[in-house]
Amino acid sequence: MRIEILNTGSELLLGTTMNTHGQWFGQELFKLGLRVQRQTTVPDGDAIREALAECIGRSDVVLVTGGLGPTSDDITREATAAVLGVELIEDEAAMRSLEAFFAARGYEMVPDNRKQAQVLVGADVLPNPHGTAPGIYVPPRLNGVANCAVFLLPGPPRELYPMFEAEVASRLRGLSGGETADGVLELKLAGIGESAIHQKVDRLLTAIPGLEVGYCSRMSEVDVRLIGHADAISKGREIVLAAFGECCFSEDGSSLEEVVVKRMSERGLKLAIAESCTGGLIANRVTNVPGSSAVLTHGFVTYANEAKRDLLGVSWEDLESIGAVSEPVARQMADGALRVSAADIAVSVTGIAGPGGGSDEKPVGTVFIGLAIKGQETRVRRERYIRDRVSFKQTVSQTALEMIFRAAES
Amino acid sequence: MRIEILNTGSELLLGTTMNTHGQWFGQELFKLGLRVQRQTTVPDGDAIREALAECIGRSDVVLVTGGLGPTSDDITREATAAVLGVELIEDEAAMRSLEAFFAARGYEMVPDNRKQAQVLVGADVLPNPHGTAPGIYVPPRLNGVANCAVFLLPGPPRELYPMFEAEVASRLRGLSGGETADGVLELKLAGIGESAIHQKVDRLLTAIPGLEVGYCSRMSEVDVRLIGHADAISKGREIVLAAFGECCFSEDGSSLEEVVVKRMSERGLKLAIAESCTGGLIANRVTNVPGSSAVLTHGFVTYANEAKRDLLGVSWEDLESIGAVSEPVARQMADGALRVSAADIAVSVTGIAGPGGGSDEKPVGTVFIGLAIKGQETRVRRERYIRDRVSFKQTVSQTALEMIFRAAES
Repeated sequence: MRIEILNTGSELLLGTTMNTHGQWFGQELFKLGLRVQRQTTVPDGDAIREALAECIGRSDVVLVTGGLGPTSDDITREATAAVLGVELIEDEAAMRSLEAFFAARGYEMVPDNRKQAQVLVGADVLPNPHGTAPGIYVPPRLNGVANCAVFLLPGPPRELYPMFEAEVASRLRGLSGGETADGVLELKLAGIGESAIHQKVDRLLTAIPGLEVGYCSRMSEVDVRLIGHADAISKGREIVLAAFGECCFSEDGSSLEEVVVKRMSERGLKLAIAESCTGGLIANRVTNVPGSSAVLTHGFVTYANEAKRDLLGVSWEDLESIGAVSEPVARQMADGALRVSAADIAVSVTGIAGPGGGSDEKPVGTVFIGLAIKGQETRVRRERYIRDRVSFKQTVSQTALEMIFRAAES
Repeated sequence: MRIEILNTGSELLLGTTMNTHGQWFGQELFKLGLRVQRQTTVPDGDAIREALAECIGRSDVVLVTGGLGPTSDDITREATAAVLGVELIEDEAAMRSLEAFFAARGYEMVPDNRKQAQVLVGADVLPNPHGTAPGIYVPPRLNGVANCAVFLLPGPPRELYPMFEAEVASRLRGLSGGETADGVLELKLAGIGESAIHQKVDRLLTAIPGLEVGYCSRMSEVDVRLIGHADAISKGREIVLAAFGECCFSEDGSSLEEVVVKRMSERGLKLAIAESCTGGLIANRVTNVPGSSAVLTHGFVTYANEAKRDLLGVSWEDLESIGAVSEPVARQMADGALRVSAADIAVSVTGIAGPGGGSDEKPVGTVFIGLAIKGQETRVRRERYIRDRVSFKQTVSQTALEMIFRAAES
């Protein structure tokens, strides 16, 4: 089954917005045992019509994103109707849900919004509980031009992702008619680099008949992807775990923060976080996980030295003499967070995110990460990550979460 | 001048790697006064040939990335030669620099690498000091099929970016023959919806000759993009600002957090943040901005009621009787953060991110945002955002930053 993605939006080609849909669709379709054959981005306006006609002409399924809004450059509905030779009509149910959307939020519905209830005759309306634009599914039989299924989907991820899960995935499964899907297993490893993994297991893994192996290196995380039949995956899994079992924190797609919350929650453990250079990112990642309120009690973003002293009891003398980015301060931050919060585990970070603030002794990228566990001696780890500011924060947060994960495991 | 981007690489369509080239090329070409008309991604292998022929057939310039490596699925050179009807030969200079690259690093050069020195007859070799694959430039006159310039460029950003700057940008300038570049202005608005903006100004804006108008709706932010000659942009800007001047926080691409840090830093104002449901996201956004340490002193992630009481002095009685998600608690959190930190402005948020925890009176999505300003009466705003957990946090953080922005402005 040949599948193409067509992303519309001038902002994607002007570079003001990153197109993350290509990656996301690739991953979602792969979970269904399907592959994307081509991805195309065109600006808003007439270019959509031309590109859509080409996609439809050579594919079995086309997934279109964007251009379903209320403004004059949102013409995906009209372009699709023209290419397929099908009329547009106002759909009563879509109109009602549009009205309900505005009513629930106390917004005024303007006349331009009406066009968002326009649907191709005979197509399915895909409800959009997170936005104003419903999606549209045109089954192959409606298509007078080619035997191709067309999905019109909203561009914003918060609307697209739930709609895909609720409305698109099952239809794609139906369209693919039970093509034998290979299985996939993703082993997420922390605390080990991609080339070290590759060096040790790649020859063993690629020797397994029918196993496709992929590596994806993220910030302080490597995902090893095994694709194939159950037997081949199982053999591959054993090889990876024999070599790097203690680095593997997830086999079911869970992120490190999800694993941390799940494990601590199961064990009834409480967490406190004291952040300087990560500025709230660790707490933010933890609180992205539903149920994290059972685990995280206190977060401290002690950016100023006064905050480190007043909230966590860090020695002012140490802050002045040794400096905030130091082993003793990281230790006192973790200890202080544990004491103040009465949690079971506390993590602390203090470092130099840059671009300014570095010195010869403590260059930009230096970070101290403290881990205090009730009844145990507090440990501090020193690292250096040479990255831009935002990537530095992300990498440090990953290391800190990895330390919490190991503490919660043992 | 019509320009297309063709990205090759199976990893981009499997979703294991994010395609960041679309955004990067868009930005780089825009700096040269040029626009990308279409971006296409195809897997490694035969699909390149088909897509390349299409791109060349309808464009003046095609920029191709990837497929210049030494392995069997790297066939961009061969596909281009076939489409253009030009022969490939081993280029002596390219071969020497390939040998030098390996020698300098003490790596062994394997026979497969030889094909990386293959170049289309008559094309320019673009040196690659950061990798093994040189780039190739095929000028329009060499092209027997259509009058189209073709650039073959390496995929990895660390090789592509310097090559673009050193070899591609000047050639594109020459090809465009000094086409007058349009300007662009992006007005970022907060606190107003896309359809309300469209309703009020779109007819006025689209009536301006030579002005291209675009809208991009983000979480609690709408970007109005004006493209055209200076005069047209200036007229458009006046119309938007006359209608929504007080909602406009940025005219230079700066994000809301960047504007907040810049403004507060200029005025010597200090910020404290007390977060419950956003869990550190507001502090994280602020600390993504270089120089934020001059502004943010204290962040409190008071997820547990005990943390609200102990760190911010919120009344336990209120927490027990009225509940943490309430106007008095938001007020006391903001007041407490201002008092403890001795900052000039403090913001607080307490709400129900969901998916659990809602009630009839306070459904999921309810949030109270407090703003305490030194010497002024503390205000609390009640909102409801019906979103998934992560989007809810993002939207609340945007509203909170918008409130800080207005406080720092006045």
